[in-house]
Amino acid sequence: MEWLKDSIVIETRGKGLYPITNQISPLLESWQIMEGICHLFIQHTSASLVISESYDPSARQDLEVFMERLVPENESWHRHTIEGADDSPSHMRSILTASSLSIPVDEGKLSLGTWQGVYLFEHRNHSHRRKVLIRCLKIS
Amino acid sequence: MEWLKDSIVIETRGKGLYPITNQISPLLESWQIMEGICHLFIQHTSASLVISESYDPSARQDLEVFMERLVPENESWHRHTIEGADDSPSHMRSILTASSLSIPVDEGKLSLGTWQGVYLFEHRNHSHRRKVLIRCLKIS
Amino acid sequence: MEWLKDSIVIETRGKGLYPITNQISPLLESWQIMEGICHLFIQHTSASLVISESYDPSARQDLEVFMERLVPENESWHRHTIEGADDSPSHMRSILTASSLSIPVDEGKLSLGTWQGVYLFEHRNHSHRRKVLIRCLKIS
Repeated sequence: MEWLKDSIVIETRGKGLYPITNQISPLLESWQIMEGICHLFIQHTSASLVISESYDPSARQDLEVFMERLVPENESWHRHTIEGADDSPSHMRSILTASSLSIPVDEGKLSLGTWQGVYLFEHRNHSHRRKVLIRCLKIS
Repeated sequence: MEWLKDSIVIETRGKGLYPITNQISPLLESWQIMEGICHLFIQHTSASLVISESYDPSARQDLEVFMERLVPENESWHRHTIEGADDSPSHMRSILTASSLSIPVDEGKLSLGTWQGVYLFEHRNHSHRRKVLIRCLKIS
Repeated sequence: MEWLKDSIVIETRGKGLYPITNQISPLLESWQIMEGICHLFIQHTSASLVISESYDPSARQDLEVFMERLVPENESWHRHTIEGADDSPSHMRSILTASSLSIPVDEGKLSLGTWQGVYLFEHRNHSHRRKVLIRCLKIS
């Protein structure tokens, strides 16, 4: 068994789902992992990780609208608004989704289902430089 | 240390919580794992994984009603409705719960709390064949 | 590689976010882990784990109010109320957040982002003794 580590950086340009599957795959190839498990961890509290539908863009658009409506901004009771109306809601949206994901690797690839993709969910309006840690346990 | 892998299939018959703890336990026994960790990963974007109350069925019924109300169907702004009114909400409900779970194994069993059970949460109306990958790191 | 295990107990005094990062760090030190991964698992269905903003207390206060509003108590359709109005909502709030978290360890510390902290989210009104399992794979 071997432990392999790296991180990827995602330059976001406002709220939304950013596909990252294609940034993880080359790492697996360079590490020549055939089998194992890949742990993803996002080092932020205003962006998160999700696995969702990767085929039809309208599914992602609906997820983005949904999150805006489920966690509204500009609520009178919000106190943590020092960085803007999207500040506190960004933390709420983050805890409702994931900070860490563990995805099996088989035959050299993330063992995602046919329609699954891995996404970074940016919850802030402005551009951000987001870091996701990748840690893989290589079995073979 | 040893790496053990398998998958389980759950035949769902519409929305709801399906217990899967009893499908994982026999795998641990056959692998003779006394100690380690078990990673579960669901290969779908319209069904998810949760750990919840396993004793009183009314707790699960409330969770099912809750999810229907928290993420309503037939909203005018839903665009991803090609497979029906439950299509887009199924992805929303999935990202609010879990795609992957990591559960310690001790004394040959999943180290669940007294009232915890592992469930597949089906978010679609029709019957589906759902696949959950099981990957265990066996320490002893 | 080495497998290290322990658990921490958090005595909660009603609903809210309880910081636990500082209960995990001494374990990493005593185990002399420089690099690896740390899996956290909460053995309860009415309390959960989240990673969130650790700097400004108002961020946590907003998260606590948010959860009260997102998952209201005393709904007429709640059936699982044997332990009180906070019973069923505590399970709902738990499945919306996390039961397990996997956090990389680097240079002897949890690889959290600058503003990240690990929290136990208590969803019950009364005092509880909560147990979180800590399982670490030590690489070096």
